Amino acid sequence: MTRTDPAAPERPSTTVRVRFAETDQMGVAHHGSYVAWLEAARVEWMRHRGLSYRAFEEGGLSMAVARLDLRYRAAARFDDEVAIACRLTALKSRHAAFAYELRLPDGREVASAVTEHVPTDRTGRAVRLPAGWRDALASFLQDEAAYPRDRIGARRAAAR
Amino acid sequence: MTRTDPAAPERPSTTVRVRFAETDQMGVAHHGSYVAWLEAARVEWMRHRGLSYRAFEEGGLSMAVARLDLRYRAAARFDDEVAIACRLTALKSRHAAFAYELRLPDGREVASAVTEHVPTDRTGRAVRLPAGWRDALASFLQDEAAYPRDRIGARRAAAR
Amino acid sequence: MTRTDPAAPERPSTTVRVRFAETDQMGVAHHGSYVAWLEAARVEWMRHRGLSYRAFEEGGLSMAVARLDLRYRAAARFDDEVAIACRLTALKSRHAAFAYELRLPDGREVASAVTEHVPTDRTGRAVRLPAGWRDALASFLQDEAAYPRDRIGARRAAAR
Amino acid sequence: MTRTDPAAPERPSTTVRVRFAETDQMGVAHHGSYVAWLEAARVEWMRHRGLSYRAFEEGGLSMAVARLDLRYRAAARFDDEVAIACRLTALKSRHAAFAYELRLPDGREVASAVTEHVPTDRTGRAVRLPAGWRDALASFLQDEAAYPRDRIGARRAAAR
Repeated sequence: MTRTDPAAPERPSTTVRVRFAETDQMGVAHHGSYVAWLEAARVEWMRHRGLSYRAFEEGGLSMAVARLDLRYRAAARFDDEVAIACRLTALKSRHAAFAYELRLPDGREVASAVTEHVPTDRTGRAVRLPAGWRDALASFLQDEAAYPRDRIGARRAAAR
Repeated sequence: MTRTDPAAPERPSTTVRVRFAETDQMGVAHHGSYVAWLEAARVEWMRHRGLSYRAFEEGGLSMAVARLDLRYRAAARFDDEVAIACRLTALKSRHAAFAYELRLPDGREVASAVTEHVPTDRTGRAVRLPAGWRDALASFLQDEAAYPRDRIGARRAAAR
Repeated sequence: MTRTDPAAPERPSTTVRVRFAETDQMGVAHHGSYVAWLEAARVEWMRHRGLSYRAFEEGGLSMAVARLDLRYRAAARFDDEVAIACRLTALKSRHAAFAYELRLPDGREVASAVTEHVPTDRTGRAVRLPAGWRDALASFLQDEAAYPRDRIGARRAAAR
Repeated sequence: MTRTDPAAPERPSTTVRVRFAETDQMGVAHHGSYVAWLEAARVEWMRHRGLSYRAFEEGGLSMAVARLDLRYRAAARFDDEVAIACRLTALKSRHAAFAYELRLPDGREVASAVTEHVPTDRTGRAVRLPAGWRDALASFLQDEAAYPRDRIGARRAAAR
C-alpha cells in the first residue's frame, strides 16, 4: 500500500514499507523490487493531482514503459519505510518521463530513477495522449528551474 | 505499504493497494500476489501488538512458513484497497498458525487464508519460540468462542 | 523457463532453476516464489499433452485459481533445480484440481501442493469447460489406484 | 528455469519462457519481470564459462547492482520464449558491467539493457573482486571491435 504525505503538497512523496517477500539472500530489498515501487509512486502522484490511472486503463489506454533507468546508492532493508518523490520531467503527445528519488526516513538516498513512457492502446500501438490528460499533465510538468537536472546530477556525484 | 486501521482495535486490519505489477493478463490481481499481502498483514499484526518481526529476524530467527492455504472467492483488481484481517489461531512452542480474511471496501470477501509457521534458526533448523515471544503471542491467541472456525466455515459455504 | 523431462513420459516433471530474485533474507527461496512454479508446471503439463494454455487464454477463457494449498517440507535455495511433478486429480465441467510434488535433484521433497480451478470467461464469470478441453483433460485424469491420495498422505507423514 | 543454447558458443543466450505470473493487465509481460530475466541470464553466462555465482555468494560476496538501464522495444507475451544474449562490457577491480539483448524466436528485439555492478561483502561494503574471479572475467571481456556500442545504438535508432 501507499501513503501520500499531505504535509508536503509541492513535492509529495509516496511511502512503501519493504516487504519480506521483496528481500533477497543478500539481506536487502532485491533491486527488482524497486520497479513496482516506482510504479506505485507514479499512480499515487497522479491520484494526488486528481488523475486516476485506473480510469486511464479502464478507458483502454496504458502508459507503457519504454525505458527504466535505476541507480542504486544504498540498501533498503526489510521493514524500512522508503519515501519516493516523483516528478514529471517531460511531456509530449506521445511521450512522458518521470524522475524519482527514493529516501529512507533519515534522509539517505537509496536510489534514483527515470522512467519514460509511451501512451498505447489495447493493441499496444503508440497513440496520442487524450487532450484531457495531456492538458492536466502539462500543468504539473516540473519547472526545470525549480528542480534542475543539474541538482540531481550534483547529488549523484556527491553520493559516490 | 500497509496501513493499520486504528478504529478497529480488537480486530485491526492491514490495507494494501493492489499494484499494477500485481495484476495479470486476466485483468485481476494474480493469485500469487496475495502471498506477500498475507505476510505484510502478519508483520503489521505483530507491530500493532508491540512485536517487531524485524527484531525477531535480526535476532537470527524466522517464522518459516510450513503451510499456506489460500481460498479465492472474488477478484481483486488494480488499485483496489484490500483490507486483511489477521488473527493468531494456534500457538505451541514449535508451531503457530494465523487465519486471514481479505475484503474489499464494500465488504465483499476476496479471499481467506491460513498459514502455519515453524520457528527456525539461521540454519533452518526448527527451534522453540523464545519465551518472550511465546508469552506475548499467547496473550493474543484468539478466543475460539469469539472467532470460531465454524463461523468461517459457514461463511465459506455461503459464498459458494 | 521450464524443461520437461522426456525420460519420464508417464509422470513428466517440469524443472525450474531458483532465481536470485526468488530468494529472501532467510537465504532460501521465498515461499511465495513457489506459486509461479506450480503455474509453470501446469502449463508445461498441458503442453506435454498437446494442450496450449496460451490458446485457451487467447480464446477468452481462464482456469482461475479457486484454492492454493502449499505445504513446505524443506528449503529450496538459489540456483537449485526444483523438479515439479504435476497430475490432474479431479475434473468436472466447472472444476479441476491438480496435485504437485516438488523435489530437489537428490530426491528430497521440498514441497507438495494442490490447486483447484474454475473455468471463467473474460468477465470472470464461471463457465463450463469447452467440450474439447474437457474430453482431452478427462483422458489425462490420473487413475486413483495409480497415484492414491493415501500414498501422498503417507509420504507427508513420513517426511515429518 | 533457463536454457543455454549450445549451438551458439561465442554468444550463447539464455532462454526464459514468460510465466503467466509475469504478465500484467495490459496483456504483456510486466516491465518489472525483465529484471529477474537479466539476472538469470548473468548467472547462466557465468555458468557457461565455469563460474558459479552460487559459489561466489556462498563465499560471502555479491555482485550488487549499482545501475539498471532497460529499454523496452516490443512486448513479450505469456508463453513467449525470450532469448537473452549477455556480454561483459566493462571490468575493473571494483566495477563490472553487462549488456543484454532480448529477442523473440523470430528475431524481433523486445528489449536491451545494461547493468552495472559493484562487488560487496556481507555487510554491503564495496570490495575488490577476488583475483580468481577478476582474471577469469577479464578473459571474457568482450572485444569492443566485435560488439561495438555503436552497433547497438544503430539498432536502437532503427527500431524507432
